[in-house]
Amino acid sequence: MKLFRKLIPLDEALKTVLSYAKPTEIEEIGFDDALSRVLAEDVCSPIDSPPFDRAAMDGYAIRGEDSFGASPNNPVLLRRRSRGEGEKKNEIMEGEKNYLPIQTGMPMPKGSNAVVMLEYAKEREDTLEVFKPVTPGKNVSFKGEDVKKGEEVLKEGRLLKSHDLGMLASLFKSSVKVYKRAKFGIISTGDELLDPKEYFEGEKKIADVNSYVLAALTKKNASPYIIGIVRDDYEEIKNAISLSLEEGCDGLLISGGSSVGKRDFIADVVEDLGKLMFHGVSIRPGEPTGFGVINNKPVFVLPGYPVATMSAFELLVRPFLYAVHGVKEERKKILAIASKKIPSAVGRTDFVRVKLLCAENGYYAEPIRVSGSGILSSMTKSDGFVVIEENKEGVEEGERIALNIYD
Amino acid sequence: MKLFRKLIPLDEALKTVLSYAKPTEIEEIGFDDALSRVLAEDVCSPIDSPPFDRAAMDGYAIRGEDSFGASPNNPVLLRRRSRGEGEKKNEIMEGEKNYLPIQTGMPMPKGSNAVVMLEYAKEREDTLEVFKPVTPGKNVSFKGEDVKKGEEVLKEGRLLKSHDLGMLASLFKSSVKVYKRAKFGIISTGDELLDPKEYFEGEKKIADVNSYVLAALTKKNASPYIIGIVRDDYEEIKNAISLSLEEGCDGLLISGGSSVGKRDFIADVVEDLGKLMFHGVSIRPGEPTGFGVINNKPVFVLPGYPVATMSAFELLVRPFLYAVHGVKEERKKILAIASKKIPSAVGRTDFVRVKLLCAENGYYAEPIRVSGSGILSSMTKSDGFVVIEENKEGVEEGERIALNIYD
Repeated sequence: MKLFRKLIPLDEALKTVLSYAKPTEIEEIGFDDALSRVLAEDVCSPIDSPPFDRAAMDGYAIRGEDSFGASPNNPVLLRRRSRGEGEKKNEIMEGEKNYLPIQTGMPMPKGSNAVVMLEYAKEREDTLEVFKPVTPGKNVSFKGEDVKKGEEVLKEGRLLKSHDLGMLASLFKSSVKVYKRAKFGIISTGDELLDPKEYFEGEKKIADVNSYVLAALTKKNASPYIIGIVRDDYEEIKNAISLSLEEGCDGLLISGGSSVGKRDFIADVVEDLGKLMFHGVSIRPGEPTGFGVINNKPVFVLPGYPVATMSAFELLVRPFLYAVHGVKEERKKILAIASKKIPSAVGRTDFVRVKLLCAENGYYAEPIRVSGSGILSSMTKSDGFVVIEENKEGVEEGERIALNIYD
Repeated sequence: MKLFRKLIPLDEALKTVLSYAKPTEIEEIGFDDALSRVLAEDVCSPIDSPPFDRAAMDGYAIRGEDSFGASPNNPVLLRRRSRGEGEKKNEIMEGEKNYLPIQTGMPMPKGSNAVVMLEYAKEREDTLEVFKPVTPGKNVSFKGEDVKKGEEVLKEGRLLKSHDLGMLASLFKSSVKVYKRAKFGIISTGDELLDPKEYFEGEKKIADVNSYVLAALTKKNASPYIIGIVRDDYEEIKNAISLSLEEGCDGLLISGGSSVGKRDFIADVVEDLGKLMFHGVSIRPGEPTGFGVINNKPVFVLPGYPVATMSAFELLVRPFLYAVHGVKEERKKILAIASKKIPSAVGRTDFVRVKLLCAENGYYAEPIRVSGSGILSSMTKSDGFVVIEENKEGVEEGERIALNIYD
């Protein structure tokens, strides 16, 4: 039996992986389909927004100057600009002390420069009593106040949120360029595996967990494509890999059999079909993780144990998917105090599952006790994970750590 | 013109809204379709997981006792249990100093109780040299170590994550009960509105932003259904509401026209068709928010300004959607220090958009300067929002605040 060629540090593995992350193609889609997609262009506004001066309150459009001196006991009286006054019927004329009723969002009539709020005026027939002066500009949203024509509103690389779609809508930008979702094939290998949907009473095999976990994790950025379970057979694995890459997968996530056991075919197959860049990373769990390139396409060799695969996914695959899809933002982390010591060895990066506890003075992070890579409940019982870098000898009780919350 | 009947405090509005939140029906779906859905049952494990004692490392299954005394200079010699030994061929016999090669995840042979790692042994033909003793139990995952038969693994109300699907897979739970997504109809009202997809050069109308923002925000929990723009006409609005509720919407989000202007039809229509529970909430932005019930179905009356609508969504609609869909978890907030004073009036709840700044000693939150409810860029320039409760007179510089990060 062969051992790992060599365990390489996480940062080296990550550097290698990212050096093969070439951005996906760009496609143009309707802005309303772009939620959670990544912008592949800088969006500059083709218009001023608002496109005209508009009322910011319900009330009466006036020339602010005409209200000067008004008070509750001594209201200023204004005359409604009537409809029969020819071409200038909707214009507030200087010196004529006019007003026109207006609602929030409507264009300001020509000549007006302020809105008296309903609360500070009383209209009787065509006369308005104004009880409080308004300065010119008051209660008006000026043209371009939100966004100026030509201004950059959203940057390439942005993961689009609900209000970003709103911004695109407001600028009448009905389609946007985004990065295509890469199609990632997902293969689980192992004679011992059974698809959870094919279980029958008394079956002695164990469930294929990785296909479904990897599909769910991948879905956020890319298009997962579950290929299924492949037996521990060199030729079968080789065929499955070749076929999926020929048939349109942009990359592969293969799990299982990546340990140093006799069934350690995957790495050999990758080397056979292309080039294995590394196999064995100094992360825990997830040591037997490898990465290769076949026909210019990335192939991740992931551990069989689900928690080890998730660890490898978070530490290596997710950054790769972000790079491929042009995501520029990092996930926001939560800062918390370690509620107990978390041991770790120098020279190894640890993926530690923690529970988040909320106290009066902030958050506490409590590491999950049972944490073997076979213990799936260490994931379901935790709220997120902490990465303990390889140059750190664990975390002391009371030390501050940064937590990634599971999506 | 009528003013708001009365501004009610947010907590009162929220209490009213939640009192009408009845859980949606339950449906059973494939576990692999359940990502981000809400569990409507407590899931208890039908099996022990792992289902049998299994190897946690690649190596050799032995009786740990047989390795006692082993050292690099004085290895213990074990004999491979050969295939021709009848019924007990895969059994490690006490007193016979046997071993069998084993790979991670495989069932432990009967009689064995420990795994010697590859690194600490050397196999030559049918003889194994063991260089280090292992205690019984070493490198073994015991039956039920992860989850015991009957143990509750996932609770009703859980928003299912990738690893939760993994847990369901591992237990061969191929389908799960989840809460149905409620169908929420979305209507924008206003003569001034134009669908962003129908824009042509020179068009003077403003874009319907709310339909798309509300659809995107709703999508997370429910099924949004965009009904479109309805003119400011009492009968048209009445028809649109009646029709959508008759045709299968479980609730409605109607925006625009909810101010005190003359076009204030929506609240009247809701009162006409059912019962308006409140109209006017002491939140900023979002004051002209209302809520009514028509044929037992919830109808939210939301402001026309997009930012005001988003504020009302976060403060009232989202908690309602969580309640209706059985979500028990709160969104995790990020704690940050206010980088400057944030003014607010007592008696009013403020929805303040902030930028998150990352410093050496933690996060800082900087309020966005321009923050009118017409200023959509106040959303796109911010990372999240802070809610300043009504009994607080603003936030002092240096004070700690809890931030909601936008999804």
